Amino acid sequence: MRQVGSVLWPKLRVLQVYGANTGVGKTIFSSILCRAFLKRFPKVHYLKPISTGPQNEADDRHLSILSKNVRARCLYQFADPVSPHIAARSSKESTSNDDIRAAVYDELSSYANDDDSVAVVETAGGVLSPAPSGSSQADLYRPLRLPVFLVGDHQLGGIGTTISAWESLHIRGYDVQSVALFAESRYDNHSYLKDYFAERDIHAFSVPPPPERHSSNAEDARAMQQYYEEISASSSVQSYTSKFVEDHAKRVGDLQAMSTEAVEAIWHPFMQHSERSKDTITAIDSAYGDYFATHTTQQAAVTAQDPQASLIRPAFDASASWWTQGLGHGNPHLALTAAHAAGRYGHVMFASAVHEPALRLAQTLLANMGNPRLSKVFYTDNGSAGMEVAIKMGIRAAAARNGWSADEDIVILGLKGSYHGDTMGTMDCSEPSIYNKKEPWYTGRGQWLDFPQVKMRKGQWIVEAPGELEGVFGEARTFDSLDDIFDFEKRKVDSDMYRAYCDATLADLEKKGSKFGALVIEPILLGAGGMMFADPLFQRCLVDSVRGRSHNAQTSTDDLNWTGMPVICDEIFTGLYRLGRFSASKSFLGIDADIVANAKLLTGGVLPLCTTTASQAIFDAFVSDDKTDALLHGHSYTAHPVGCSVANESLKTMMKLDRGGAWDRFKQPWKAGESETVGAWSMWSEAFIKAVSQRSQVDSVFALGSVLAISLKDPDGKSYASTAAYQMRDKLLAGAPDDEWVIHSRVLGNVWYAMAAMTTTKETIESLEEKIYAALE
Amino acid sequence: MRQVGSVLWPKLRVLQVYGANTGVGKTIFSSILCRAFLKRFPKVHYLKPISTGPQNEADDRHLSILSKNVRARCLYQFADPVSPHIAARSSKESTSNDDIRAAVYDELSSYANDDDSVAVVETAGGVLSPAPSGSSQADLYRPLRLPVFLVGDHQLGGIGTTISAWESLHIRGYDVQSVALFAESRYDNHSYLKDYFAERDIHAFSVPPPPERHSSNAEDARAMQQYYEEISASSSVQSYTSKFVEDHAKRVGDLQAMSTEAVEAIWHPFMQHSERSKDTITAIDSAYGDYFATHTTQQAAVTAQDPQASLIRPAFDASASWWTQGLGHGNPHLALTAAHAAGRYGHVMFASAVHEPALRLAQTLLANMGNPRLSKVFYTDNGSAGMEVAIKMGIRAAAARNGWSADEDIVILGLKGSYHGDTMGTMDCSEPSIYNKKEPWYTGRGQWLDFPQVKMRKGQWIVEAPGELEGVFGEARTFDSLDDIFDFEKRKVDSDMYRAYCDATLADLEKKGSKFGALVIEPILLGAGGMMFADPLFQRCLVDSVRGRSHNAQTSTDDLNWTGMPVICDEIFTGLYRLGRFSASKSFLGIDADIVANAKLLTGGVLPLCTTTASQAIFDAFVSDDKTDALLHGHSYTAHPVGCSVANESLKTMMKLDRGGAWDRFKQPWKAGESETVGAWSMWSEAFIKAVSQRSQVDSVFALGSVLAISLKDPDGKSYASTAAYQMRDKLLAGAPDDEWVIHSRVLGNVWYAMAAMTTTKETIESLEEKIYAALE
Repeated sequence: MRQVGSVLWPKLRVLQVYGANTGVGKTIFSSILCRAFLKRFPKVHYLKPISTGPQNEADDRHLSILSKNVRARCLYQFADPVSPHIAARSSKESTSNDDIRAAVYDELSSYANDDDSVAVVETAGGVLSPAPSGSSQADLYRPLRLPVFLVGDHQLGGIGTTISAWESLHIRGYDVQSVALFAESRYDNHSYLKDYFAERDIHAFSVPPPPERHSSNAEDARAMQQYYEEISASSSVQSYTSKFVEDHAKRVGDLQAMSTEAVEAIWHPFMQHSERSKDTITAIDSAYGDYFATHTTQQAAVTAQDPQASLIRPAFDASASWWTQGLGHGNPHLALTAAHAAGRYGHVMFASAVHEPALRLAQTLLANMGNPRLSKVFYTDNGSAGMEVAIKMGIRAAAARNGWSADEDIVILGLKGSYHGDTMGTMDCSEPSIYNKKEPWYTGRGQWLDFPQVKMRKGQWIVEAPGELEGVFGEARTFDSLDDIFDFEKRKVDSDMYRAYCDATLADLEKKGSKFGALVIEPILLGAGGMMFADPLFQRCLVDSVRGRSHNAQTSTDDLNWTGMPVICDEIFTGLYRLGRFSASKSFLGIDADIVANAKLLTGGVLPLCTTTASQAIFDAFVSDDKTDALLHGHSYTAHPVGCSVANESLKTMMKLDRGGAWDRFKQPWKAGESETVGAWSMWSEAFIKAVSQRSQVDSVFALGSVLAISLKDPDGKSYASTAAYQMRDKLLAGAPDDEWVIHSRVLGNVWYAMAAMTTTKETIESLEEKIYAALE
Repeated sequence: MRQVGSVLWPKLRVLQVYGANTGVGKTIFSSILCRAFLKRFPKVHYLKPISTGPQNEADDRHLSILSKNVRARCLYQFADPVSPHIAARSSKESTSNDDIRAAVYDELSSYANDDDSVAVVETAGGVLSPAPSGSSQADLYRPLRLPVFLVGDHQLGGIGTTISAWESLHIRGYDVQSVALFAESRYDNHSYLKDYFAERDIHAFSVPPPPERHSSNAEDARAMQQYYEEISASSSVQSYTSKFVEDHAKRVGDLQAMSTEAVEAIWHPFMQHSERSKDTITAIDSAYGDYFATHTTQQAAVTAQDPQASLIRPAFDASASWWTQGLGHGNPHLALTAAHAAGRYGHVMFASAVHEPALRLAQTLLANMGNPRLSKVFYTDNGSAGMEVAIKMGIRAAAARNGWSADEDIVILGLKGSYHGDTMGTMDCSEPSIYNKKEPWYTGRGQWLDFPQVKMRKGQWIVEAPGELEGVFGEARTFDSLDDIFDFEKRKVDSDMYRAYCDATLADLEKKGSKFGALVIEPILLGAGGMMFADPLFQRCLVDSVRGRSHNAQTSTDDLNWTGMPVICDEIFTGLYRLGRFSASKSFLGIDADIVANAKLLTGGVLPLCTTTASQAIFDAFVSDDKTDALLHGHSYTAHPVGCSVANESLKTMMKLDRGGAWDRFKQPWKAGESETVGAWSMWSEAFIKAVSQRSQVDSVFALGSVLAISLKDPDGKSYASTAAYQMRDKLLAGAPDDEWVIHSRVLGNVWYAMAAMTTTKETIESLEEKIYAALE
């Protein structure tokens, strides 16, 4: 499948002409512009990708007759003079959005060479008029994100239609550079619109309307000829063309300078800045669907050699923008949803208040987690803050029940390699490591256990135990399928062994004085700590063991109350379909957590929001007559309506995909045996990960849901400092000079990983699999 | 000034008819709807607020002639048949948006009584056609936020104009309930649009177009009469009317149930939930400008008595939505900006990457802080996380220079009552208090000093010192003006005394073993800790004292480097014009901080974002060949483009207001003596705060920038647990039954405070001052 994205050629300046409505003069303006540009450049291209109506009336013919030095071209000509989505029904030609974009891209590429020139691309109908596929013009061309010249509506009502058309382009991420329309004295739309757009830093101008039509074709042609000559030479049009040329140069210059300027002004997250230079910073000009539109030093080198290469190249966003992306970049539904909430509320203070988006989101989470314990939703702004709240909830509840004073040294129980965030409370939930050892205020407040991991090695699913657990666990287990690993019934021997181990370990730790305020786990996948796939049975047994602790078991008969210690599931990364299911703790481990934190996919990859959902028993531990017993936590933008609205829309969309069988093509091959349903599945194919696991460079690999993780062999034993994964990452980003798209990825030590959005197609995954396999030795 | 907001009457159902363009049949559809509703309700009202053209052709006449049982009314009739913004120029009538909204509100109120009925409000032109004031129809009526019936465009190009019109309404926060248009077989727009809106859960339907016009008026009238009869009785229209009635009932029911449902599903921030019931939760239906549209138990009681009272009442948002609001709720520019960024990017991962909104925001902050030390911007999601980063930056830099190991007990120096956030690292920066004493993981890591405070008491500006400082400071100082307090030159005696005190105190603390990693202050106003106005001269002297510490003074000649200890200014609340100036530390204290954190107003009250800006020297302390020396901090949504874009737009707007003299009317009266410029000023008038300070209930009061804080006398000495301020808050929210709007506020202990947006008008402030004064005893 072709994948073309946003383009920017240094010497070929492209603009796209949109109309605020049909019949506003797009073709006349295109003609004026082509002629005006001819005064500056020897070659001017006019491209009408889609035209409907008899060919001799088609816009491109009209234009080339009138102006011989313009090279005009139409790509899709439909004889039927109706909207393209109707005309295309009777056509045999393939007119998917992908095909049309690729054809436009190829055509424009063919114009790009060492000569300075301009290409004017005229759309069909209005901004949101249907394309042949049925989606709108603006959505069809959005991936190319060409600078827009909007022809305004000079007719009665045209002020409103012009501004609305601009808004529709704007919310789709277009840069509308200029607005122009015919000066029509009756309605005076042009005066109003000039001021309106000037306030928004958009250049707007008007030209006199074309001469009235007469009966004689020859006379009309002469009159139009004269009109075009006059208008294209007019000062307003000429000042537009010089502005357009300047804007193009500025855009190229800004893009080329971005990485250097970033080095000046930005302190990047998670980076040793001695390694930073303009060459190590990727400039991201825009993004759409699965892809970034990137400019890199490597791409600059390619364009220096090849004038047909764009300064911008699509790069598959393989970290899903730090694990947040779920429904595609530049998603117009989510953009509109965000805007609606901003327009309805802005932010509204959430203390002692409620608004619909926050209430509905809380209700949706409670209704769909499948966990009867969960009862109350607390909002924060990101996963780290949400986990701080979870910890506060857990340890306060434990302290209250056990009668521990605030001075006592309460710790959490966790797994080695866990990671819950970068604020200091969550840092303290991880064992001492290179991440935190240089932070003066870091204090490890926990006990962390080794755990067995799921991997595919040399074509075989295994579970193996590291460190001190190895002595108990013995040799690695082998499994025929991923589903078998999740079949707890069949793994009675492991289950008994795990439970005995956990019981003994907990008893021992408690004997030594540990006061546990909470068990804190990332269900199934330990993310930032190194992308480790925990044996789900072990996590399940650990929870059972914790809840079976008798010394402080709840005496109440309420089976929704916690026993042993509150169980906190950090599903910030693993929840909400990232692993293919709504709730990782419920669906995979079969447990009802007491506290669950969600973020990242919650807002579908648009903006930050986090929810910490707690059981009634946890909530009740904070209720008293004393104000200071309350959870005195809150952020200014707590439950901001924009975030809650986007979350509601994201969840609705993902649940619809789930229920509508959108992932069935991925799920089907993962079915184990005769099974009708599939528990564990991935968007990455099992055949692919089997093949990967056989590469000599690879230690092991796994895939679950949208996540793929490849552990590379680490000859130096340096783990986090290992360079094998870096090399893979760099190779995939550089690509070959003629690759239409490349892969942008992040690594964790010696683990190279990728994840898809929940809307990524099977075809895209297959292309990725090819590239990834080829990059491995 | 009248202030009307969103309305919802239980028995009067209102819908507003918008057109996707002019000439799409708004009036015909209004007629159809009125007649259809007559089949359900005895009374139907038709309101055309604004009409242009000769009166006998006006829509309301047309409609009342055709359907006698409809009570039709037009409020503004312009004879000139042009767009209202042109027609209004020659009119003597006042046609501001406020006037028109108030007139519409009053007219609709007059329809509301105990009888069930419907009012159809027809707009003029298209959705964004100009109103008499020049702003758009949609912006004119937005505060009322009536449910919308959108008449789609059946003409060529109408698919695009209809969708764009819907998008323009949607991003302004309207609920578009239904879309209807004429079925026109040539273009088949109605088939496309029905599917399109069904996917978006919006009911869409079509009706046959009206009969063609003939020459005979009588025949036309008969044909139309017949058309109306048929269509209004048709199943599609009847099913629409029943849906409309259901939607209204659902909206009323949902609003009335919201507080109860919130109690079920939400864990509110900063609340002792034993005090929570549906009666203490304010349901916020929407917001616009300075006002929430609120439904409360009190309001429910009012509507139970008075059918003309709306279930929703405007409440001035006096906490500026927890101090975030700056440019008005529901600001369409910010909504569009957010949508543009979401449409251009979604989120894009920021590690080793850069995008334009983040780069421009960093550059704007660096260029406008006026602080030559600041060099690098780090992004987080909220103030608490941003302050965690600031602390990490400061103490790591101090530890590196002083050769302290990570195990040593490094503390911060701060002021008593400081508050920097609720994540555990920032909690540790506050002295032990009721806020944190029950958190098991809280560890106060600092030394906190008393400080003198600025207050107006009994009409006199004073500076007085509390606690142990009183012995040194002596009696309270008095000042003639606020500006005099900021005139450090004239306060040499205080300055010397402060400096000597700080020097001695620091020397003593260091002698006792304190290792200070940073000085952390909130410049001028200590916000969440109790809204205290620190004597700026004291803060300045403290900084000078810290920087003058010789034991570890920087030997380098680089005067941009820190000495003594890094100085961190938490300007999350106080920066970016909240106190009237861009930077509180630079403008008021005259210091160049080493690290500055900004949030809240940064994003103008839309969504969370925080910046932590550091000097090059601080940044350099993290640069080495060792990856683990880096600041290993980052959040998934770090530098999310939506937040950065909204911040860029907010800052641009506020800087424009500043430079354009938008606040001159507020500033003028604050000028001291002959002074041409004004340093310290407030949107609240000095005369008002003088008057307030004389009320018997009031201990003291101050105002600065948009902030007003009133300390109420606390007879029980309970401070945070004091109820005096609660009573004031509750009284202002309840209002009188016939108050057009009330005040929604928050309190901090015995302090009742209010703050305005940067766009709040002087007239609104004056109305507020009246209400606040009246509420005080």
